[in-house]
Order: sequence, then C-alpha cells, then structure tokens
Amino acid sequence: MTARTDEILSWYGADNPGTLANLSRLLNHGRLAGTGRLVILPVDQGFEHGPARSFARNPPAYDPRYHFELAIAAGCNAYAAPLGFLEAGAREFAGRVPLILKVNDDDVLLAEKDPNQALTGSVQDALRLGCSAIGFTIYPGSAHQLEMFGQLRACAEEAKRHGLAVVVWSYPRGSDLSKAGETAIDVIGYGAQIAAQLGAHIIKVKLPTDHIEQDAARAVYEAEKIPIATQAERVRHVVDCAFAGRRIVIFSGGAAIFDDEKLLAEIRAIHAGGGFGSILGRNSFQRSKPEALKMLNAVMDIYASPGAAA
Amino acid sequence: MTARTDEILSWYGADNPGTLANLSRLLNHGRLAGTGRLVILPVDQGFEHGPARSFARNPPAYDPRYHFELAIAAGCNAYAAPLGFLEAGAREFAGRVPLILKVNDDDVLLAEKDPNQALTGSVQDALRLGCSAIGFTIYPGSAHQLEMFGQLRACAEEAKRHGLAVVVWSYPRGSDLSKAGETAIDVIGYGAQIAAQLGAHIIKVKLPTDHIEQDAARAVYEAEKIPIATQAERVRHVVDCAFAGRRIVIFSGGAAIFDDEKLLAEIRAIHAGGGFGSILGRNSFQRSKPEALKMLNAVMDIYASPGAAA
Amino acid sequence: MTARTDEILSWYGADNPGTLANLSRLLNHGRLAGTGRLVILPVDQGFEHGPARSFARNPPAYDPRYHFELAIAAGCNAYAAPLGFLEAGAREFAGRVPLILKVNDDDVLLAEKDPNQALTGSVQDALRLGCSAIGFTIYPGSAHQLEMFGQLRACAEEAKRHGLAVVVWSYPRGSDLSKAGETAIDVIGYGAQIAAQLGAHIIKVKLPTDHIEQDAARAVYEAEKIPIATQAERVRHVVDCAFAGRRIVIFSGGAAIFDDEKLLAEIRAIHAGGGFGSILGRNSFQRSKPEALKMLNAVMDIYASPGAAA
Amino acid sequence: MTARTDEILSWYGADNPGTLANLSRLLNHGRLAGTGRLVILPVDQGFEHGPARSFARNPPAYDPRYHFELAIAAGCNAYAAPLGFLEAGAREFAGRVPLILKVNDDDVLLAEKDPNQALTGSVQDALRLGCSAIGFTIYPGSAHQLEMFGQLRACAEEAKRHGLAVVVWSYPRGSDLSKAGETAIDVIGYGAQIAAQLGAHIIKVKLPTDHIEQDAARAVYEAEKIPIATQAERVRHVVDCAFAGRRIVIFSGGAAIFDDEKLLAEIRAIHAGGGFGSILGRNSFQRSKPEALKMLNAVMDIYASPGAAA
Amino acid sequence: MTARTDEILSWYGADNPGTLANLSRLLNHGRLAGTGRLVILPVDQGFEHGPARSFARNPPAYDPRYHFELAIAAGCNAYAAPLGFLEAGAREFAGRVPLILKVNDDDVLLAEKDPNQALTGSVQDALRLGCSAIGFTIYPGSAHQLEMFGQLRACAEEAKRHGLAVVVWSYPRGSDLSKAGETAIDVIGYGAQIAAQLGAHIIKVKLPTDHIEQDAARAVYEAEKIPIATQAERVRHVVDCAFAGRRIVIFSGGAAIFDDEKLLAEIRAIHAGGGFGSILGRNSFQRSKPEALKMLNAVMDIYASPGAAA
Repeated sequence: MTARTDEILSWYGADNPGTLANLSRLLNHGRLAGTGRLVILPVDQGFEHGPARSFARNPPAYDPRYHFELAIAAGCNAYAAPLGFLEAGAREFAGRVPLILKVNDDDVLLAEKDPNQALTGSVQDALRLGCSAIGFTIYPGSAHQLEMFGQLRACAEEAKRHGLAVVVWSYPRGSDLSKAGETAIDVIGYGAQIAAQLGAHIIKVKLPTDHIEQDAARAVYEAEKIPIATQAERVRHVVDCAFAGRRIVIFSGGAAIFDDEKLLAEIRAIHAGGGFGSILGRNSFQRSKPEALKMLNAVMDIYASPGAAA
Repeated sequence: MTARTDEILSWYGADNPGTLANLSRLLNHGRLAGTGRLVILPVDQGFEHGPARSFARNPPAYDPRYHFELAIAAGCNAYAAPLGFLEAGAREFAGRVPLILKVNDDDVLLAEKDPNQALTGSVQDALRLGCSAIGFTIYPGSAHQLEMFGQLRACAEEAKRHGLAVVVWSYPRGSDLSKAGETAIDVIGYGAQIAAQLGAHIIKVKLPTDHIEQDAARAVYEAEKIPIATQAERVRHVVDCAFAGRRIVIFSGGAAIFDDEKLLAEIRAIHAGGGFGSILGRNSFQRSKPEALKMLNAVMDIYASPGAAA
Repeated sequence: MTARTDEILSWYGADNPGTLANLSRLLNHGRLAGTGRLVILPVDQGFEHGPARSFARNPPAYDPRYHFELAIAAGCNAYAAPLGFLEAGAREFAGRVPLILKVNDDDVLLAEKDPNQALTGSVQDALRLGCSAIGFTIYPGSAHQLEMFGQLRACAEEAKRHGLAVVVWSYPRGSDLSKAGETAIDVIGYGAQIAAQLGAHIIKVKLPTDHIEQDAARAVYEAEKIPIATQAERVRHVVDCAFAGRRIVIFSGGAAIFDDEKLLAEIRAIHAGGGFGSILGRNSFQRSKPEALKMLNAVMDIYASPGAAA
Repeated sequence: MTARTDEILSWYGADNPGTLANLSRLLNHGRLAGTGRLVILPVDQGFEHGPARSFARNPPAYDPRYHFELAIAAGCNAYAAPLGFLEAGAREFAGRVPLILKVNDDDVLLAEKDPNQALTGSVQDALRLGCSAIGFTIYPGSAHQLEMFGQLRACAEEAKRHGLAVVVWSYPRGSDLSKAGETAIDVIGYGAQIAAQLGAHIIKVKLPTDHIEQDAARAVYEAEKIPIATQAERVRHVVDCAFAGRRIVIFSGGAAIFDDEKLLAEIRAIHAGGGFGSILGRNSFQRSKPEALKMLNAVMDIYASPGAAA
Repeated sequence: MTARTDEILSWYGADNPGTLANLSRLLNHGRLAGTGRLVILPVDQGFEHGPARSFARNPPAYDPRYHFELAIAAGCNAYAAPLGFLEAGAREFAGRVPLILKVNDDDVLLAEKDPNQALTGSVQDALRLGCSAIGFTIYPGSAHQLEMFGQLRACAEEAKRHGLAVVVWSYPRGSDLSKAGETAIDVIGYGAQIAAQLGAHIIKVKLPTDHIEQDAARAVYEAEKIPIATQAERVRHVVDCAFAGRRIVIFSGGAAIFDDEKLLAEIRAIHAGGGFGSILGRNSFQRSKPEALKMLNAVMDIYASPGAAA
C-alpha cells in the first residue's frame, strides 16, 4: 500500500470496498507490490491454442501446479486461468497468489472470421475458488460482439456486487477488420475504450502498431497530429483512450516471442508510455522455469524502476 | 480404497467431499476396484444411432434391464445411459452399480456437419435416480461448441455443488475438421484439454491415430519430437494433455468392433500408455451376454495387471 | 386393476406413486379398463390443421363439449386436447374422463420443412384442470429437434415431480427425411426409442410401413433379418424399440381415414403385434356421433378380445 | 445385496431410486452387509452432553478423525454425527463409510422439562459432505413437539427429493411424562409410530421397559394381553408399532453402559425380538479402541447369526 | 505461509479453496503472519455496551477510522466489528487489514437473563465490504440458544459457499448458569465444542476458571483427573474440547482489564497451553494508542516466541 496504489484505487469510486480490497490485493502482491505496475501470468493457451502447441516446448507446463508455482516464484501480481486449471491447484496453493478466473474461452478447432467465446466459469466459481477477479475476453468488431458485451455486463455486475474485480481482455477482431487492423493504433485504442465503458477495472490489450485502420479515424489522427510514431507514444495514447489513464491498462507480450531483447524493449516502451504492466503467457511458460524466472525478473526490474508515472 | 485411489482423489482439491465420495464409488466398485483403472458400460446408442442398429444383433439388449445386469455381472465400475434407460431400472437395481446419467444426447435422423446435443436430463434427475455422476457430450470444433461448453459449465457447477462427479465425452467434430481429423492425435489431445479446462473429473475420448490435423500443431509435434508412433505413446500424450495425468482419461473402443484381438491390443496399449481405462459400449452389448462377459473379463485382466502407472 | 395393469405399472419404477396413480387411472377407465389396452380420443386438429378442415364435416364438433361427451359416451380411456378445449369443458365434465393436456402445438399457417412446436400449456395448467397427464409432441429429425427435446425434458421432470404422467407424440419429420421416411419402419422405431429415452410413459407413433429410410439401418435390418413384412410384425418391432415392450406404445389411425374396413384391419394388426392401443382423432370426430360410437365400439371389441399379449 | 435387503427396500415404495440406493448403501456396508441388520456409530454426545463428559474417558475420541476410524475398523454400517464432526473428516475419509448428518441438536446447558432441538445442518450440507442420510431428533411429548415435527417434515421432503434417506431419533420426553414414562413400552411404541408416520425410513428408539405410562394405553395392553414381559417381546411390540415391521427400527444401548454382559443380553433380546440393530455411541467410543472393537465385534456376532427374522 | 499454517489449513478439508484462502489471509497477515497464532482486534462494544462506556476513556475511539488504524499499526491479524463501523472505513482502508463482519449483535438497554442477538449483517454485506470472514455470537445455555444456533447454521452455510470463513464467539450464558458458571472450565469447554460442531472455523471463548458448573461434568473431571489447576492446563483442555486442537481457538482478555501484568500472564498461559491467540478489545482501544500499541506489541512478543505448539 503506497500513495500510488491509493491514487489508483481512488479512480474506482463506484465500486464497493470489497472490489477495492481485491484490486488492492492485485496491486500489492508480489515483487511489484505498491509500484502501481503489474505483471500477470495468464495461462489460457491450453484452451485457446491446444495443449501441445502450448506446453510441449516446456513439458512440465502440462501440469496445472506448474503455473501456480511459476507465478509464485516469479512474484507475479496474479495468475489467470480457465476453470479447470484453477480447480486443479486452488486448494494446494490457497492464499499464495491472487487468482483471476477466466470465465469465457474459445478454441481454434473451428475457424471463425467472427470469433466468439463460451461461458466457461461463473462468479460463484470465482468465489468458491478464492479468486480476486474474473477475466473476460471480448472481440470488438466480431459479428458476435454485442452478445459478448451483454454477457460481460451481466458477469461484471454480479462480480462487482460480490466484491470481485473485473479484468477484460479486449481483442478487436472480425470480418470487417484487416489482420493489420487488429493491432492498429486506432483500433487498439478503441478496444481499450470499449472495455473501459463496459466497466472493466483492468484492461488488457495488444501492443499497437502505427497502422490506422479506419478512414474516419485516420482523418482525426492526422488533423490532430496525435503522436503515435514510437511505441511509448502509442502506449500513452492507448492509456489516454482508457479514461485518460484512470483505468489500469496492461499489455500482452505482442509478437516478441522468445526474442528477449525485443521483448524488453517493448516493456521499456510500455513503462515509458505510462502503461501499467504486462500480461505474459507464452513468453513465461514456454521456456524452462529458470529461464522464465530470469526473463520475468528482467521485466520486473524495468517496471520497478522509477520513471514516467503511469 | 487403496493408495492409488487416494492419490487420484487428491487431484480434485477444489471439489467437496460429496463429489470425492462419488468419485471414490466409481473407483472402488467392481472387479477393478482400487486399481485406479475403470471399465464403464455406456449405452446411449439407442438414442444416438437408433434402436435396431444398436440392439438387433443381440435382441435381449432392447430391454433396459439387460444393461444393468450386464454391467453388474461383468463387474464394471459404472453404467452410463440416458434418462429413459436409467428410469427403467433404477429402482430394481438400486445400489448395485454406480450410475452415470447422460444429460445430453443427439440422434442421427438429422445429418449435421456441425452437430449439437439436446439437454435430456438434469442434476435433479441424477439425484432422484441415485446416480454418482452426470455425463455430458461436447463436440469441440462444431459451430455449436460454445453453446455446449456453456451448458456443460452450468450443469457441472450444479452437479459439483450437489456432490456429484462430472464425466465428459469429448468428441471433436465439425465443419472445419476432416473425418481423419476427428481422431487425429493433436485433435484428441486438444479435446481432452478442453474437457479438463471445463472442469471434467473424468474425460472420455476416442483412441487417437498418428494423423495430425492442424498445421500449427504439426509444427510443434515435429519440432518437439513428441513421440506418437505407437498407440501407447499416443495414449500417454493424451493423458499428458489432460493436466499431465492429473485428470482421469478413459478411451472408447475405437474402430475395433468385434475384432477382439485388435480390441485387446488396444487395451494393452491404453494400459501401457497410462490410460485410466475404457468405456465399451457396442463391443459389450452387441454380442451375446456370455461373449460379452468373456470379452470384458479379458479387458479387465489387462487393466488389473501391474504395469505402467496410470 | 388387474394382473396386467399391475404388470404394466411395475415397469415405471422410477416414478412416484402419484404418477403411477395417474397411469392407473388411464389404464383402468372406460370400456378397456384393466385390459392393458387404451383407446384415446385426441382433438388437437383445430390447432394443428385449422377449424374448418377439422370440424366442418361434423359441425357439432366445433363445440368443445362435444369431444368430452364423445370420449365419455364411447368409453375412451382418456381425452387429449390443447389448453383451450380443456378449459372449455373441464368444470362441466370434471372427474368423468381422464384428461391429457397437450402442452405444445403447431399450426399450418407457416410451411416448415423443419417443424417446431410452441409451448401452449404447462404442468400448472394440467394440475388446475384436473388432468392425469401432459401430452408433448416432438419431431425427431427436425432442425429444431434438440430444442424440443430439451423442452420435453423440463416439462416431464416437472410433471413427474407433481405426479402426472407424460404422453409423447413422436413424429419424425425434417429436411433430411423423405415423405416416405416419416413412416419408415426404422424411423418410426427410432422415434419410439427417442421418446422412451426422454422419459415418456406413453408413446404415440404412426403406423410404420415396410420402407427403410436410413442406409446404416437397412444394413442391420437385412443382416439380422428383422421381420417387418406384415403390419403386425412391424408393430411388434416398434414395441420392441420402446424398451422391449416395457413402455406403453399406441398408434394413430394412419392413412385409413373413413375407410373403416382398412382401419379395423390396422387395429387387428396392432392387437396382434402387441401394440397397446390407438389414438383416434379424425376418424372419431369427423363423422356423426352415432357413427363414431359405432366405429369406436368396433375398435374396442378388437382390443378387448384375448390374443397376443401386448 | 441379498433377498433380505431386497425385501426391506420393497417396503419403501414411495421413495425414489436415489433414496433406495442410499438405504441400500446403509444395509450393504460393513460386517453386517446384506443381513438386514445394522450397527451404527453415532457421536453427537459432544454436542448433547458436552465434550469432557463424552470424551475424557478415552481422550483420543476428542479428535473427530477417531470416530471415522472406529466406524471403519469395526465395520459399522454407518457413522452419524453433527455438522462439525463430519466436516472435520469428510474429505479424508470420503467414500469409506456411509455418513448420516445429524441436522438438529441440543445441549444440556439449559435444563428443559420440554426439550427442543436447533437446526444445525441441512440437506445441502448432507449432499456436499457426501452423506447417505440425514438424522433428525424429535421429542414426542415435549411442548415443542409440533415445531419439531414440522421441521422434520420439511427436511425429510427435501432429503427425499434429493435421494437421501431419513433417520429419526424418536425420544419421548416432556412435562407430562414421568422419567420412567420416557422408556415405557406404550410410550416407546408410540414414539416409533410417530416417527414412522412422519416418514422416517429408519427409526431409532430406546429399549423399552415393561412400565406403562398412559392409563388409556394400559387398559388396552391389559385387555388385549399384549406380551411385554420379556425384552424380546417388547422389542417385537415396538417393531410392530412401526408399521408391522415394515420400517427399520434400531435401538440405543439403553442403560447398560460399560456392563458388557448386560449389553450383549440386550442385543440378544433385540435380535430375538426382530429388531433391526443397534446404534451404539457411548458404549463404543468411551472405551479404548481395542475394547470398543472387541465389544462391537461381539454385538455383530449376535446380529450376524441366523434367528428370528427381523 | 509456513508449514504450520499449511498444517492448520489441512484441518478444514470440507471447505472450498475460497474459504481456505480467507483463512490463510487471517493466518498470514500482520506481525504474527505464519506463526499459526492470531491477535484480533474486535470492536463491537459500542453496540454491546454503549458508546460512552466504550469510548469515553479514549475519545479518539469514537471515530470508526481509529480502530482500522490501530489494527493496522499494531499488526493485528484482523479487525472485527459490526456493520456500521466497517462501512465507515472499508473504502479508506480497503485491503490493509483482513476484516471480520460481526453479523449479529445485542445491546444492554434491555436486561435479559437469557440473552439473544439480532441479525445485523449478512454474507452479502461481508462480500461487498471485502471481509475475509463473518463473526457470529452464540449464547449456549440461553433460552434463545436454539434460535441462534439455527441462524448461525444458515449464515455459515452461505458464508462457506461464498468462500468466507466463519468466526464464532461462544459465550455460555442463561438462566440456568451461575455468573461463575459462565467461565467455568466445563462450560467454556462445552461452548467451544458447540461452536466447533456448528461448523466454526475459528472459535472465540473466554478464559476459563477452575470452577466446574455442572454436576454431571464434575463427576467426569474428577474421575478422569483432567488437569485444570493452571490457566495453561485449562487452555489446553479447551483446545482439546474443540476437536483435539483441530479448530482454531482464541481467547478474550478475560477480567484482566488494564492490569497488564495480569494480562500478559494470561497470554503466556494461552501460549503455553497451546491456545491459538487472543482477541483483545477493551484492553486495546480503551487506552491511548501508544499505550495500546505497546501492550499489543508485548502480547505479540509472547505469541511470536517459540514454545508449546498450538
């Protein structure tokens, strides 16, 4: 608990003290406790990409206990996973690391231009498993987006009433978006805004490129000369898009899989641009545990350093 | 109750003692009691394939009592069937064999590239009929998969709260999967993972072939040299895909209908690969009872023998 | 109450005594009381086909009281109708004949290759109207079949909990079935099995022809030499398909409208094949009451005669 | 499962198969499995009499695990205890012995001529703990009796709907009963009848004396020359009072605490009189475990011997 | 998290991981984190005794924020209070100290020989305020005890389902107990047992004297020579009475108000006797904050020292 975490909690005036206590737990756990930055370990790739693609590179990761242990050893702020993975360790590791239950998931056995997610967990599950938050994925731009928004709304209302926090994975995707458009700066910023407007406490987006997808947006970006040339500028813009920095925005590792130099450069950009942290899945659990701990330590070194206020 | 069944129960730390007691009942009933292996008799083919196709080869099997008697005489760990079949014998055979109520089913009167299942039973039905578990089929890869996942989630949450176990039939199938892909090693492993992440206690899959369906998966199988040449290796991989062996995975009889030599070779491979057992429907009830008992006895001989720990 | 009706009731071991008492009422009312056979008067054609098509040939039949009076005068085991028809006579004829409330219905104003039914009544309606059973139509093979199965499951669970019996009209129909396929022996048998698996106490199907619709089924019918040459053989096979005769299966009048000779031949075949009775709608109310009583009397003469045990 | 247990189950025709399966579990577990007799270990004395009075004689009995172990080692049919004692061992001993959750309890800190009981457990608790039955105490004759009867009715209805069995401790007591009257033959028989009428599956009463408490009853006992001179005769009469022997009636150890000769004489009388067994608390756990096992073994020797059919 | 706290959590096998996580929070917060001992600050005296009697000695204590600050500054494991006091600080101090919501309370405006408590909070309140546990007072021995037991049962079931812990204040009191009897060793032990049987995770009792209140108990204490001469012996006996030490038992400050030497002697006895800690209200907040912190520091020094395992 620091002045910074107090400041962050002050942004969530509509939430009850139970939700604030859980946000505080996320902000005040692990090596980055109190810095206002977060590094979260998410492991939903077994569901989202399949087990061999996710775990064969580092076979101990097939075991659900591995990820609890990794998150604890690395001093992550939280560990996020679908129902089965959390059920398989929640008793053994009760109280050792804040948990986030992903309550919706999808797989890749069906190719979908307009993806959707199944409800795979509930607020009641999150409570019985001792979680601090629920996690929910939306695909803004998908033909199924409105259904997902509605489901998120209902889950979030129930979560907040029960004192849980709400983390939203906002991944624009759908038949009207180009592949490049999925990480375009205008689209990522828009995705962050939508998540914030839907009531997310913590928003997870991909790192944006300087591509602009929407013509109507491009006109404004150019007219207003919004600075988006550097990664740090783009991070700052996305943070602005999430209520002028009054919502916690964290970033996934992007495409820098297994290229640590590139990854750390990205982390530095997030740090410099006032991003609140990272959610690092494949970069964490698809290498040996010593390697993962080394990498996560380097990431946390950057976030723990003073610098641009988030 | 043995050290092995205690070990297996220890994997289900998020479940209440009621669910553990029912898992214990399944593991400690019949000829394989205490071995940590299971042979389950499932009879949902009357619904899934039609009555003549299912029962005409062995007409006594039209009678619902026949299957209770077969499961009891053979010393199966459990008998699984849809609502009607269980209702027709649950009083007469109360307490004689653990029951699993299939709570969803489909038929073949409508050809569907993307199959779905109807809810045909409930947790309340399972309780009033004295069942130890509910059974639920999902078709990962079907255009209806997300709806099925959501229904499973809701049924499983209610089942667990009431102290029942959850058995999931995971059959990948759908418009983006080839026929060979339905039993591809990557797809079967993925199906096992999805069932585990959805909170299944026991997972039923088909025996995988060495075909690999997904390009993205093939790259990993080849790069990591995942051994999948033999049936036993493939079984071990699928078991790994279900939380590194910390969920019970059982296998259907595969294509070896009425070829006992081939069937027993498969059982030996499941045993050698650390699979937890078999669910044998057509191979059991589509032959005369003496023949069925002889075959099931031979199968249980294999599972009862020491060897590769499951 | 006879040894035969006791035997029939013994098949329903999962049901509570309230449901047994209502089944007993159906089996022990009217001229066929105690024989184990039933003739039921159903009048849902006003809804299903329209009033003029249904009642103009015999205008007194526009009046809902007419059908109560007909069922009572003829000594039918029960009278089945939609909500409105039952509401219009339930007080006046309270206690005079067992009632079955059809709780779903469809009309022909919309042509549908894959038909569906609307929920038009409830278990609560059935109780307040003094009914002994609910009636429910399913269309196995329709693209809407899974939805109907799920609705039936829910209605049946509620009905059984409240001590009512469940009568299922099982009419295979849908875009993958030919017109001939709707009454094919394999399809009718399959429809009877599905209704039984869904928990029906009494199953109503159409009289099957010797056509076989499904290739996979044909192989079995031929290999196993299932006798289906005569109507009586086909009736016996359908009864087998409904749990080896341990569920009550009754037949509609088939195509023999107003051809009494043909109709009575069919009844003799049902009787000889061990069918449990008939449900005769248009043949009953689309002729004058004296004619109808005469016809129903002739039908009951056949069912009341000794012969092939059902 | 024997002809005798089948016969016993046949008495409970209004119950669903789930309740029958749980009754079957109680009748078919432990050393007396299949005999139709039961020896149950009840440990509610910690609550009812206080911990030192209950456990100080044999201090290992302070530990809740002790009683699970004792019931298992002795081969008792079931172990019955309040919520806390069951919660403290239900996971560790899941599936090893049928459990009965006492759902109401009282203590002796308040002296009450007209005792009452608090609701201390629920059907939902019983399900989550994996119990086969709920246990409920009533005090017929107490000024609070009607409240207790009503609570039992509600609990029993819910238990039966969920497939649980109902065990009733029927202890007549109250301001209009003398101390001797609490075990008078007319009063004990009356208490057994009340429990049976309230829907109990298993009834626990105290061993009756030949005292007759009620004048109106005495007139009948004398006029009809009801034989009550010997303990076996009195047991038979009480069993008659519980639906002519068609409800399971078991007896507590009576006053024969620690006088094994007297205790075994009582057991022989229960056996000879057709009682269904014993529920032995203080006599079991207030002596060392070896002594307890020896005593319980001697008791079960008697019940396992052939003789007067229960 | 230490071997000791893992051991303690292992006693609660019937609870879900959510409740374990909250118990872990209580055990692993503040200065005694990980020792298996707890010092809790309770402030319900404003409600129970009136504000002037409670706060006038140390007027800053009128302010609800004072008590949060005191608990945090002292490093208490938790702070327990009624609804209003928690609502008045829960946002400001969110996440800084585990909270226990007292969900029932009584006042002294009505003199009652047989006291009762009003329900003043709920599980939903506890969740929205971010509490780790609910607190509940029972008065075993009161004429209202059964009503309180029933309310506790219902609250505890709901709390456990939602992942909260349950703390029970067990204060024997009532018309059949003498004033000395309220803290008699037999009565305090009995009160601890009742709370444990009702499903409490943490039990708070008063320090017992060597008085024995109940004649039936005295006979046993004397016959079994239960050592109760010293305070440490009595503490050990009470801990035994709560499931042989497998439930957390903590003690209130007793009569040693403002006599720190006597208080610390009591703490040493609790420590030596294997008690799990103290709950210190008036001794904490009825003196100046520096004095309170000094006293609490001295108390925690004792509990933090090695010695008799709890």
